[in-house]
Amino acid sequence: MGRWEPNARERLERAALALFAEHGYDATTVAEIADRAGLAKSTFFRHFADKREVLFGGQDMLAELFSDAIRTAPPGATTVGCLAAALEAAAAAFTPDRHDLAPRRRAVIAANSELQERELLKRARLASAMADALRARGADDTTARLAAELGVLAFSTAYAGWAAPENRQPFTEIAHAALRDLQASATTLGTGATCPG
Amino acid sequence: MGRWEPNARERLERAALALFAEHGYDATTVAEIADRAGLAKSTFFRHFADKREVLFGGQDMLAELFSDAIRTAPPGATTVGCLAAALEAAAAAFTPDRHDLAPRRRAVIAANSELQERELLKRARLASAMADALRARGADDTTARLAAELGVLAFSTAYAGWAAPENRQPFTEIAHAALRDLQASATTLGTGATCPG
Repeated sequence: MGRWEPNARERLERAALALFAEHGYDATTVAEIADRAGLAKSTFFRHFADKREVLFGGQDMLAELFSDAIRTAPPGATTVGCLAAALEAAAAAFTPDRHDLAPRRRAVIAANSELQERELLKRARLASAMADALRARGADDTTARLAAELGVLAFSTAYAGWAAPENRQPFTEIAHAALRDLQASATTLGTGATCPG
Repeated sequence: MGRWEPNARERLERAALALFAEHGYDATTVAEIADRAGLAKSTFFRHFADKREVLFGGQDMLAELFSDAIRTAPPGATTVGCLAAALEAAAAAFTPDRHDLAPRRRAVIAANSELQERELLKRARLASAMADALRARGADDTTARLAAELGVLAFSTAYAGWAAPENRQPFTEIAHAALRDLQASATTLGTGATCPG
């Protein structure tokens, strides 16, 4: 094991995103990322399994934050209230000091079809985690699955809004607005409003 | 070009599913599939780009059936009515004579994590197709996205129910029941019913 390096994870992340932008994701190697960060390759592998994990390593943490928040929401919470708690918990990962990384990450993913697929799979996994947590609270299967899709749509909308380069609004505020819009759409669907056409 | 072979596509499909079940998906080659079907390898490639397409080749057709049905639903149709039209159109692909293939296809996918990912991506693409068609009708973006997720959940539920080995109920009936359940859940989410816990 090498010596402890301050902020190694973030330095590696910034180096990787810079290289992905300069040379493309496929052409960038782990050795180049470590080199650009001024760290050993072995340090990279203490933080990430591979270069893809630099982009998607936060997935497990997000799934856990979502699950825990839904599990521990107050007994009287509405289903949408449980989703709000999940998104509030996720806000811990979307702080102002990480804001400049988000548009870079999105640009790398947008340029690579394999990474786009990975992003879609990430959303499916986050929806699964939410649905499991809602079922564990006693929600029926159909409501748990639909609510989880609603939660992930709110999350994607909030992340895209937060990650926009010019955005200064905190993640939680954007997430609450997205949830409110989706809840209104759920009412529309439930009551059977006509689909213009 | 070889000569025309009657039912070549279905013969290849049945041969492939049998071999996937016997030897596993990864170990099966296109040459073996063609051989088992009593057809030339070149005939296989006139029907499928590769062996994965035997399992997922229906995706584009489904996306088109969904889109067309949503686009041509009557002007007064509700959003859920548009989704019902989409699922009714899809029923053309789930006829009784194809019923015995469905559980085999599901078993092959369940045994292979890469194919499971492909199935999740297929769902994401079908949701995209539905959302685009709803937006083209004038639905607002949020409602289009949520309705598309609801539609794909109804489709997955209906397909799983229809594909169950003992099932004899037509796809359309199962799909309508799934849509009704999901619409009730949408109402629950919209009105803010509490999440037991």
